[in-house]
Parts: sequence; structure tokens; C-alpha cells
Amino acid sequence: MERLENLLKLGSLVDPLLEKYVLKDADPEFHEALLYPIRTGGKRLRPALTLAAAVAAGGSMEDAMPAAAAVELAHNYSLVLDDIIDHSELRRGRPTVWKKYGLSTAILVAVHYRESIAQALNDTRDPKLFNEIMARTLKLLTEGERLDILFEQSGRSDEPYVVERRRRSVTLADYLDMVYKKTGALMETSCVFGALSAGAPAPVVEALGSYGRSLGYAFQIGDDIIDIFGREEVTGKRVGKDVEEHKLGNVVVLLAAEELGGREREELLAILRRDAVDAPSVKRALEIISSTRARERAEELRRRYSEEAVRALSVLPRNEGRSMLETLAEFVATREF
Amino acid sequence: MERLENLLKLGSLVDPLLEKYVLKDADPEFHEALLYPIRTGGKRLRPALTLAAAVAAGGSMEDAMPAAAAVELAHNYSLVLDDIIDHSELRRGRPTVWKKYGLSTAILVAVHYRESIAQALNDTRDPKLFNEIMARTLKLLTEGERLDILFEQSGRSDEPYVVERRRRSVTLADYLDMVYKKTGALMETSCVFGALSAGAPAPVVEALGSYGRSLGYAFQIGDDIIDIFGREEVTGKRVGKDVEEHKLGNVVVLLAAEELGGREREELLAILRRDAVDAPSVKRALEIISSTRARERAEELRRRYSEEAVRALSVLPRNEGRSMLETLAEFVATREF
Repeated sequence: MERLENLLKLGSLVDPLLEKYVLKDADPEFHEALLYPIRTGGKRLRPALTLAAAVAAGGSMEDAMPAAAAVELAHNYSLVLDDIIDHSELRRGRPTVWKKYGLSTAILVAVHYRESIAQALNDTRDPKLFNEIMARTLKLLTEGERLDILFEQSGRSDEPYVVERRRRSVTLADYLDMVYKKTGALMETSCVFGALSAGAPAPVVEALGSYGRSLGYAFQIGDDIIDIFGREEVTGKRVGKDVEEHKLGNVVVLLAAEELGGREREELLAILRRDAVDAPSVKRALEIISSTRARERAEELRRRYSEEAVRALSVLPRNEGRSMLETLAEFVATREF
Repeated sequence: MERLENLLKLGSLVDPLLEKYVLKDADPEFHEALLYPIRTGGKRLRPALTLAAAVAAGGSMEDAMPAAAAVELAHNYSLVLDDIIDHSELRRGRPTVWKKYGLSTAILVAVHYRESIAQALNDTRDPKLFNEIMARTLKLLTEGERLDILFEQSGRSDEPYVVERRRRSVTLADYLDMVYKKTGALMETSCVFGALSAGAPAPVVEALGSYGRSLGYAFQIGDDIIDIFGREEVTGKRVGKDVEEHKLGNVVVLLAAEELGGREREELLAILRRDAVDAPSVKRALEIISSTRARERAEELRRRYSEEAVRALSVLPRNEGRSMLETLAEFVATREF
């Protein structure tokens, strides 16, 4: 089994390509802002998935490079816009794009990224097919983000669409549907792109897609756990940000609310519904959540999806690619950042 | 020669396709917001260009339909984002998308539109080529919008990128460069898409692209004239909005500033540099501008580019398509809305 550090370096193999596609057709005066999202780090998990999936499917990493670049660009594209939508000021321990450069520039950077994705996809084995899959995937991401916003319990009073359609109750099934769209779909596509780059037959493409889908659930559940229980110096993000952002669409908050009885449940929901959630309120919410089995149950769920991901690989021959995907699933099941 | 009303109906032939691509992979709860931009009107000039160019190149409108839908979707995509960037509250006499639904929803609508473009392009004659051209075109649009913003003389004090890079002087050449990118590139692509949909040879593609490029200048100069001298009840937009938005990148403002001597030139520029340009200031700016030959010179420039567009068609055989493009150029040279 590959060591994790090597695997996370794997994704970075696409860095030169990312820069190539991002700088294509760009004015030199715009370069700095364009490079900012991809030069401020990131785990490069999605391109690692594409490259490992290509090898697992019997192909070469080389053939999967443009597709791997495309999924990492798609990830960064969505982050730049999500940070605008969520008013997030910090990512990876640094100012977000809109915070650093301003709203207009952030929007222009995002638009430019989307075109860099198209340019990368045009260098894949089958541009039409890859473009079609990416379009569907990014529409799913949009829908996932729309639901994530509607699951917020307050805020956005200047956004009529959200105010009128907010969900007052969110079930675990609602949550999982949102998570597949917001996170799972792109991980699925990352793996499918690897398989297709290798020219794999349909059952292999399906198995790797299924792995990516399950991994997506595990990954997002991990994100939710880290948001509530993470350590700022490790994560580069503020703890309890989801509570501040009124999110009932965090699995830990959701499971806590589900488990709690009358008064404390109401207190937790009341905090989420506050116009502005101050630091003492976040602290109190974390206390209430910590009094439940929500963390334990979320960890179980994360573990279960990670195992499901690994099981989906069982139809594949044992090779280095499959082994890399297994290690990545283990990383996703246990990561703290 | 075709009558103008019929020509503007021509573009509306793509309406069913626009709705098809926009509603593809969309949740029913999202439909209303997604349909809003395309159902609130618009001249459908770009799809008319694509369809007319296809006929001019000896092809059929039918073959050019997906490409025509793609360019109109691209236009709407850019409008949704431009209205966010410019804080515009009114378009076509109605609230803009962000004003009606909120910022997050507007961003999600825009992202969804971009994917609908990709889906439309996948139904063209050569998806890889059409995708490549669209990606380059949308990167140019981004660059044009970036320059347009940098040509503003005040505002965006919360946007460090803009504040640090603002242009203190803008020449006519700078303006034309910005306009090609912001407006001309997509009109050029609209015509090129028509030609390519018809399977036209390179010189025909080039001639039609050149027509679209010249038309783009004429169109944007017209927009600038209408912004300063238009009538609100005809245009659906507020008069003098560009002055309010501190834009030196409006050709009428630019030509006035160029022509004016000392005191009045300084007064006009001082208005553009005010933090908030109030109604009396807009009125005063319009007075100053009206005292110059800027309107006349802008009209001459518009006419010249429109004629240049028509001249580019001279290599094509006289047919109905070419005749439609000539009528469209006449419309662009004289339109008041």
C-alpha cells in the first residue's frame, strides 16, 4: 500500500497543467489573481482520484492528466464561488479570492476557471463525452449548493429566493441527497474520468464511479465533523463556521438535533435561527452537540461510506491503482484537515 | 431586403431550444429562476446573427440552431454576472436576477447557464471545435469586463484589485480593445458559429467573423450612446447609468473628455470620480457632454463600423442570408433601444 504523503503528492502532478490552462488566453495583468486559488494549496484529492482510477482501470497516468487537471479546476471554480455565496473570508489559512481582490475580480476569476476546464477537457480522449459529463456534474453541484443554502435556518434576509424557500426540517435522506450533489458528483466524475481516460469498459467505469460516489459522502461527512470539532491551526478554517452560517445541513448538527429532546433541541435550533450567531452562541451550540452521540454517529457514517467505497473496487484486479484508491479511502475516513 | 421585425423574430426561433437546454438536469423548484433571464425578453440579436450567417454561408438555419442557442445563453450568462458586478437593479425594465432573487441564486443561475451552453455546443456539428471557440470567447469577455471595470474612475472602494489598478487615462484605442473583448468577440463567434454550422470554407468563416467583429464595435458604441442620450421608456434602463457608474469606458464620455478644454473637462472627470454620483451631477455631466460634438462623433463611429461590417460581406454571394445580415447592420447603426 502506498504511503499517504506520496498519494497526496500524486495530485500535485497536475500543477503545471493547472497553470497552463489557467494562464491560457489570460492577460499578464490578470495572472496573479488567476493563480491565487491554485497556488494557495489544497489537497489535490480529485486529480489524485482521476490518476489513481486511470491506473486502477489499467491505463496510464499520462493519458488522464488533462482530465485530472479539469476536475481540480472544477473544484477550485466551485470554491471561489462558494466562498462568495457563504461570505467566507478564510480558506486554507488565507483570505478567500473575493476577500483578497474584491467581488468583481472573484467572479471574473471564476468565469475564467470555467473556460480553463473546457480547454482541459478538449485535450481528453473524447472531448464531447467529457464535456457532457462535466456539464451534468456542474449542474448537480449547483443544485447541491442551492439545497445547502436552503437548509440554512437564518441569514440572507436580502435574498428573497432563499427566504421564501428555506427548509424548516431536514432529514438524513435530504442531507445525503444534497451531499451527493454538492460533493459526491464531482468525486464520482473524477474517478469516471480516470476510467474513461484509460479506455475502460462500462463495468469498470461504473465500479470506479460508485467508489467516487461513496467516497464523496465520506469526504463531506468528514468536512462536517472537522467544521465542528476541528482545530483551527490544523484546518486553516474557523471552528463552528457551519453553526455561524446557520447550517442544518451539517451532519453533526443534524444528528445532534435528531437525538436531542425538547429543551436542548430547541436551544440548538434557536441558535441556528439567530440573525447573527455570536461566539458565545457558537460555543454553547458546540457544548450541546458534544453532549450527544452525534460525533460518534457521524464518524460511524463516515467509516461506513469509506468501506462502501473500498468494496466497490472489488470487481477490479488488484493493482497499484486500486491500492492507491484504498489508501485514499482510508485517508478520507480518518482525516482531520 | 428582409423587414426588421421579421429579423428580430428570427432570433426568437431558438427560444424553445433555450428553454430545453436551461431546464435540462434542473430541479423543478429551480425552473422559475432559471427561466427568468430568457423570459424577460432581449433582442435575440446574437442567435439571429448565427442563423443569418448560416444561410449566408449556404447552409440551413436548422443546422445552426444549437449553436444559435449557445450564443444567446452565453449572452444571458454574461448579463446575469455583469448585473451583479455593476450592482445594476434594472434590465429590460425589470429587476435583474440578483435583485429579484438574491446574490446566491443569481450566481447559481449563472453557473447553470454556463453548463447549458456546454450542452448546446455538444449538439453542434463539431463539439470540440465549438467548445474551444466558446472557451476562448468567454475568456475574452472576462478580460473585456475586467478592463471595463478598471476604466471606472471611482467606486468599488471595497475591491482592492480594482482600486490598485484603475486606469487614470483611457484612449480611444484602449476603449476599442476593451469593446472588442467585451462585446465584439461574442458577436464574431455568433457569426463564425453560423458559418461553421453550414460547413463553410475558411474564407467565408473569416468574412463572417470580420462582419461580427465590426458589428460588435457598432453595437457597443450604440449602447454607449443610448446610455447617455436614450429615453428610459424606450430602453428600460436609467439614463446616464454609465456616468453614475463612473465609466470613462463609454465612448461618448471619452470623446467629450477628449474634446473639452481645461475647466469643463476637469468638471466632467471630477463628476466621474465622485464616490456617489447623484442625480444633479448626472444631469450636469450630460449637459457638459451635450455641449461637445461627442454624440455626433460617436454616431459617425457607429455608422463607420456598421458600414465596415457590411463591406466584409462583399466576398459572399448575394443571398437571403447576406441580405439579413445587411439589415441587421442597419438596425445596429440606428437603433435607439
